Amino acid sequence: MHRIPVDEYVAIVANHLRDALAPRTETVALGKALGRVTVAQVLSPVDLPLFRNSQMDGFAVRARDVASPPVTLPIAGIIAAGAAEPTSLPAGAAMQIMTGAVIPEGSDAVVPVEDTTSTGATVTVLKSRAQGEFVREAGSDARIGDTLLPAGLTLAPRHLAVLAAAGIASVDVRALPRIAVVTTGAELIAPGVEPLLGQLFDANGVALAALVESSGAVVSALVRNDDDVVASLDLALREAAVDTDLILTSGGISMGEFEVVRELLEPLGATVGTIAMQPGGPQLLGAFHGIPVIGFPGNPVSTQISFEVLVAPLLRAAAGRAPAEKRHHTVETAIDSVPGKRQFLRGRITDGNAVSIVSGPGSHLVAGLAASDVLIDIPAETTRVEAGDTVETWTL
Amino acid sequence: MHRIPVDEYVAIVANHLRDALAPRTETVALGKALGRVTVAQVLSPVDLPLFRNSQMDGFAVRARDVASPPVTLPIAGIIAAGAAEPTSLPAGAAMQIMTGAVIPEGSDAVVPVEDTTSTGATVTVLKSRAQGEFVREAGSDARIGDTLLPAGLTLAPRHLAVLAAAGIASVDVRALPRIAVVTTGAELIAPGVEPLLGQLFDANGVALAALVESSGAVVSALVRNDDDVVASLDLALREAAVDTDLILTSGGISMGEFEVVRELLEPLGATVGTIAMQPGGPQLLGAFHGIPVIGFPGNPVSTQISFEVLVAPLLRAAAGRAPAEKRHHTVETAIDSVPGKRQFLRGRITDGNAVSIVSGPGSHLVAGLAASDVLIDIPAETTRVEAGDTVETWTL
Repeated sequence: MHRIPVDEYVAIVANHLRDALAPRTETVALGKALGRVTVAQVLSPVDLPLFRNSQMDGFAVRARDVASPPVTLPIAGIIAAGAAEPTSLPAGAAMQIMTGAVIPEGSDAVVPVEDTTSTGATVTVLKSRAQGEFVREAGSDARIGDTLLPAGLTLAPRHLAVLAAAGIASVDVRALPRIAVVTTGAELIAPGVEPLLGQLFDANGVALAALVESSGAVVSALVRNDDDVVASLDLALREAAVDTDLILTSGGISMGEFEVVRELLEPLGATVGTIAMQPGGPQLLGAFHGIPVIGFPGNPVSTQISFEVLVAPLLRAAAGRAPAEKRHHTVETAIDSVPGKRQFLRGRITDGNAVSIVSGPGSHLVAGLAASDVLIDIPAETTRVEAGDTVETWTL
Repeated sequence: MHRIPVDEYVAIVANHLRDALAPRTETVALGKALGRVTVAQVLSPVDLPLFRNSQMDGFAVRARDVASPPVTLPIAGIIAAGAAEPTSLPAGAAMQIMTGAVIPEGSDAVVPVEDTTSTGATVTVLKSRAQGEFVREAGSDARIGDTLLPAGLTLAPRHLAVLAAAGIASVDVRALPRIAVVTTGAELIAPGVEPLLGQLFDANGVALAALVESSGAVVSALVRNDDDVVASLDLALREAAVDTDLILTSGGISMGEFEVVRELLEPLGATVGTIAMQPGGPQLLGAFHGIPVIGFPGNPVSTQISFEVLVAPLLRAAAGRAPAEKRHHTVETAIDSVPGKRQFLRGRITDGNAVSIVSGPGSHLVAGLAASDVLIDIPAETTRVEAGDTVETWTL
């Protein structure tokens, strides 16, 4: 049997999904933009601050009028923060002013309230202030046309804050890939239901949806197709194909008698290949009404590891995220490996540098996978790893 | 003026919020549980696999019947995956079986379909199989009562998968703190509106909501109170106090004439302190109808840094997350610092180890904060840092 090498199949999948996962832009409100990635630099449409304003609660003065304190000046008015008509500071006077309020025409300094005493009609300034002190000039933080944010930036709270401060209510970000998940198998039932003999709780729907989400994409649909009737899978895929970039399926692609995904999609041009990989050997690649379909085998460990190896790297790249961390560890016990298949064994880091095998290689061992920290990547040509040898691990 | 040291005030805030942020448990569906933290270990309510099933598409046999291949056996039936009555393998026969289907009583091995040829009525087995081969025993992955997940675990896709596989539809996780954000100031308008002279776009609502979210809590309400009328703030806080653990406010706590948060909350027992910190000196601590209130100053850089210093560490701890990363860097230019105040300056990492100052110390410089990577933490007693000296930074 010809087995396609894993790296070759990874490239085939990447090519198959190139258009579907090509960068798209969407505009989102600031309240939804945390963690999203900018597609272009954002220029300021305004000066920041918008207008010349006071840094302190105190008195707007002319600096030269308070050069030799103490000086007592008449109070010509009070300026609160908020919408205001322009005001002008009469010669030889002070105006009471609040933090953030518009500096009156003619004033060039603010004396903080703690450096004054006031009768209500007059203020005595106890300390001189230089020109410009406690005055925030318009544009002193950013000027119209300045770059507020670069392209390719992952938006953190402080980035959203400056957009808001500049009056920008929404931002162009990279769209998240929309992925539909369709699990198949006449044996599948929802968690929480009482199983009959032969029925299985569907772990793949929950797992694939969570994998999609944790790879920086969104789940556009999650459908369980629990019979072996081709017409019913056709309906499920029609449902899944709405507003989606990619459909992932689990199950129904193997060599049995009731392989519903193959039955529906092979006549539409899908191919089933055998990949030199364990778990996850059989894989389907096709399309449904123009939407690419990647079909994983139905065993839950196969499904999860297939996603990690074939799809997660593409989604992480599309979301501008780093790929899964790969490290090197020494194995605690020897490993025999099937020749010609790249093995992804489940491992747990036992101290900083050693890794031990968790559970077995069986693709149904979901508890074993849950108990592991890493996948241990054994190359196809390796048949034995000795205790103490170094292996590459993928951090889960 | 007595200034409260930052560390002392951090402890006061932590104490004030102890009950509000005490761990609570909530039960969430698996589809909402990604990234949440388990509060107790989860034991398996079932054996996994639930029943003895086939690992392969092939033929269920007795191992001793196929010990000397080739052997031709009559096919006594076909067993698909899915709900099924128990079946029994007649002596000297084989039954066709699909992956995941119930192994018939009497069978102790499965021969994969690729190691057979079949006429439809009979199957010729070309390769012997040992007892137990390709048979997944019930409970071979986990047994009833086994620990599937430990307490305190951050739920990843593989953890949700094993819960689903065991038929568990929901999980007890640490509840997320619910935080209401109320921004105040007669000058505030929403981003996107055309400002009049003296009006400011509200950056604090967007910033605090994003900071709450990125600290692992949820925003229970986001209210802008854009006038200086105490009765209207009272209404805003009543709205914010519903189903919430903590109310954060910005603005209205300073020394000006129109300090609406002070005016409402001081008569209810709130205190306003001056913290030995820049930016963010004035701070309010109080309660409203039994819900604790932390009142930040209104300048947007003060608000954001106050949150980082006073509240984010508590929320991160409540969410089981690590505190913000603190590192050491050498400064590129000398820094003069106000004695008696701990300064949080904005910095940018220029190469692996050096940090340069970005923008100025002014608490209105939102573009400067957006352009920075780190806060540079200058202790209160330090008045000057020389170029090349080491400083502590907080990664933003």
